[in-house]
Amino acid sequence: MSTIHDLVTPALLVEAGALEANLATMAAARPGDRLRPHVKAHKCTALAARQRAVGHPGFTCATIREVEGMVAAGLGGDLLLANEVLDARRLGAVVERGARVSVAVDSVQTIAAAAEGGVREVLIDVNVGMPRCGCQPERAGALADLARERGLRVRGVMGYEGHLQMLNPVDDRARYTEDAMKLLLEAHADVGGELVSAGGTGTHALNTWATEIQAGSYALMDTAYTAAGVPFEQALSVLGTVISATGGSAGGEGWVVANAGLKALGMDHGNPSIPGATVWFCSDEHVVFAPEQPGSVRVGDRVRVLPAHVDPTVAMHEAMYLVDRGQVLERWPVDLRGW
Amino acid sequence: MSTIHDLVTPALLVEAGALEANLATMAAARPGDRLRPHVKAHKCTALAARQRAVGHPGFTCATIREVEGMVAAGLGGDLLLANEVLDARRLGAVVERGARVSVAVDSVQTIAAAAEGGVREVLIDVNVGMPRCGCQPERAGALADLARERGLRVRGVMGYEGHLQMLNPVDDRARYTEDAMKLLLEAHADVGGELVSAGGTGTHALNTWATEIQAGSYALMDTAYTAAGVPFEQALSVLGTVISATGGSAGGEGWVVANAGLKALGMDHGNPSIPGATVWFCSDEHVVFAPEQPGSVRVGDRVRVLPAHVDPTVAMHEAMYLVDRGQVLERWPVDLRGW
Repeated sequence: MSTIHDLVTPALLVEAGALEANLATMAAARPGDRLRPHVKAHKCTALAARQRAVGHPGFTCATIREVEGMVAAGLGGDLLLANEVLDARRLGAVVERGARVSVAVDSVQTIAAAAEGGVREVLIDVNVGMPRCGCQPERAGALADLARERGLRVRGVMGYEGHLQMLNPVDDRARYTEDAMKLLLEAHADVGGELVSAGGTGTHALNTWATEIQAGSYALMDTAYTAAGVPFEQALSVLGTVISATGGSAGGEGWVVANAGLKALGMDHGNPSIPGATVWFCSDEHVVFAPEQPGSVRVGDRVRVLPAHVDPTVAMHEAMYLVDRGQVLERWPVDLRGW
Repeated sequence: MSTIHDLVTPALLVEAGALEANLATMAAARPGDRLRPHVKAHKCTALAARQRAVGHPGFTCATIREVEGMVAAGLGGDLLLANEVLDARRLGAVVERGARVSVAVDSVQTIAAAAEGGVREVLIDVNVGMPRCGCQPERAGALADLARERGLRVRGVMGYEGHLQMLNPVDDRARYTEDAMKLLLEAHADVGGELVSAGGTGTHALNTWATEIQAGSYALMDTAYTAAGVPFEQALSVLGTVISATGGSAGGEGWVVANAGLKALGMDHGNPSIPGATVWFCSDEHVVFAPEQPGSVRVGDRVRVLPAHVDPTVAMHEAMYLVDRGQVLERWPVDLRGW
C-alpha cells in the first residue's frame, strides 16, 4: 500500500474517516430523497456512489458535463440540472438513452430550449432573494403553464437561498431562510408538482420547507463553511511539499514555501489555511507561509493546505486520494470536470 | 468553418490578431534567446510552437508536467524549470531521452535531488526581494560550488523580481528592478555561467541586466497586466452565454447572468471584467453583471468575459479556441495542465 509520501504533489487528499462521518451525519439529518447531493462540490462519481450507498437516490448537477458523467457512471436515475441552459440537446441525448434528467427553467427561452432539446421534465427556478437565476415568484405559475403547453412535465419548483448559507448568527440564517421559502412555497402553490428543491450545506437543517436539499460542500468541507458552524468535518486538503526554506535559514522573518499554489486552490474565498502557520500569499505554484515555530518546517516536509472553497479547488485536480492516517486507500478520478 | 456561436460555453477564446501582435511586439523587444517564454501562462504547446516560430528557442516551465509536455511536443531543446523540486527523477527521464532540461536550485536538498534524479544542468535561484524561493545572494557561490561537486553543470543564476512586475509608476518599477538585478549580478559574479535569467512581462523592457527574460503573460494578457501599462493587447477572453435575465425583466436593478463562473476564471486577482457592464460577482458557474444599457443584453446572447489573471484561468480549461472576427480558426488543447 502506498502512503501520501509516494504521491506527486500538489495532491488532493480526502480523509476517509471525516468523509464517512460527514456522509453519515447528513444521511441522519436528511435521509433518502430528502437530500439531493450536489455533485458540483466534488465532481467525482466515486464519491457520488458513496452518497448513493448511504441512501440518496438522486443528485443535483450544475453543468451538462456533470450530467453526462453521472449517467456514464450508472448514477443517472434521477438527476436535476439546477441551472439554466440554452442548448439542451446533450441532455436530450442522455434522456433518450434512459436517464432521468430534469432541468431548471426560468424564462420562455429556457423552456423552449428544454422542449427542443428533448428534455421531458423541468423545475421552475424561482428567485428567492439572491440576484442570480430564477424567475420572480409571481411569474412561476405562468411559466409552468407554458412548459406544460410545450409538452414538458413540471416536477415542481427550486429556489436557492445561496446568500444565506453562511450567514451568522444562525438565528438570522433561520429567519431569513423562512422568508425565502415563503416566496418559494407561494410559487409552488401556482406551479404544482411534487418537488420543492432548495437549500445547501448551511441551511440543510434549518430549511424545513423544502422537500429536498441540494447540499454539496458537506461531504468534503472547507474553511469558509467551517466558520458557518455546520456539523461536518474538514475532509479535504491539498498536500504540498516544502520546496524552499531560504527565508528561515537566513534568520529572517521565517517564511517557507510549499508547492501548492493558486492553480491547486480555489482562491475566490481568499487564502487557504495551514494549521500551525500563517499563510502570507499564494502564487501560481507556491504557497508562502510562516510556521508558528520557526525552524519546525524543513525542505522536503509534506504539509496539508486547507482550501477556503472546496468546489473550485476540486475542479483544478485530475484526481483525489482517499487516505487514512497517511495511507492511500483509493485514487478517485475527478471525472466530472469541464463543460 | 465554425463560429463562436457553435462553441460549448464557457469557452476560452484567443484573438488571433492580438496574439500575433503580442508575439511580434515581444520578439522585436527581446529577440531570439533574449526571451525564454514562460509556458505556465498558457499551458499550451500549440501556442509555444508559435513562440518558437517567431524566434525564441528555449522555454521556461513551472512544473514537471509542463516540462514533460513540452518534450513530448518536440519543444524540449532548452527548457528551464524555474522552480525547486525535491524529486527530479521524471526530469532525469526526459534528459535521458535527449531533452535539455535545467532546473532551479536554492538549497543543499534541491541540489541533491537534481543530481540524484539525473538532471545534468542547474541554475542557482537567488532571492532578489520577493519572499518566495531563492537563496540569499551571498549563499549563491557556495551552492554553485556544491552543485559542481555533485557533477552538475551550473549554467548561471536566476532571480525573479515578481513583486515589481505591476508596480506603478513605471519609474519606480525601473529603479527597484535595478536594485534587484544588482543583487542578482553580485550572485552571478560568484556563480559564473552564461545565463542571468530574470524578469517578466512587466519588466521585460526595463530589465537590461538579465541575459534572458522569463515573460509569459504577454502573449494572452489579462486586465491586471493591462493596468500595468505594457504594450500588449488583451487576446484572451472567456466566452459565456447569457442564461438568465430575470433581474432585468422584472424592472429591478437590471442584472443578467452568463455561464462563465469562478470555475472558468482565475479569481485571485479579483473579479473579471465585461466591457460595457459592471460585474457584481461570480459563483461556481455564473457571472452576474449589470449592463450599462439596461435591456441591451438578452438571454441567449454571447458575452466575452475578461479574466483578471490569465495563468489560472487558462489552467481551468481543456482547450482554447483561436478566433478571428467570430470565426473559429483552430482548437488548441491546453495540454500542460496538472503536475
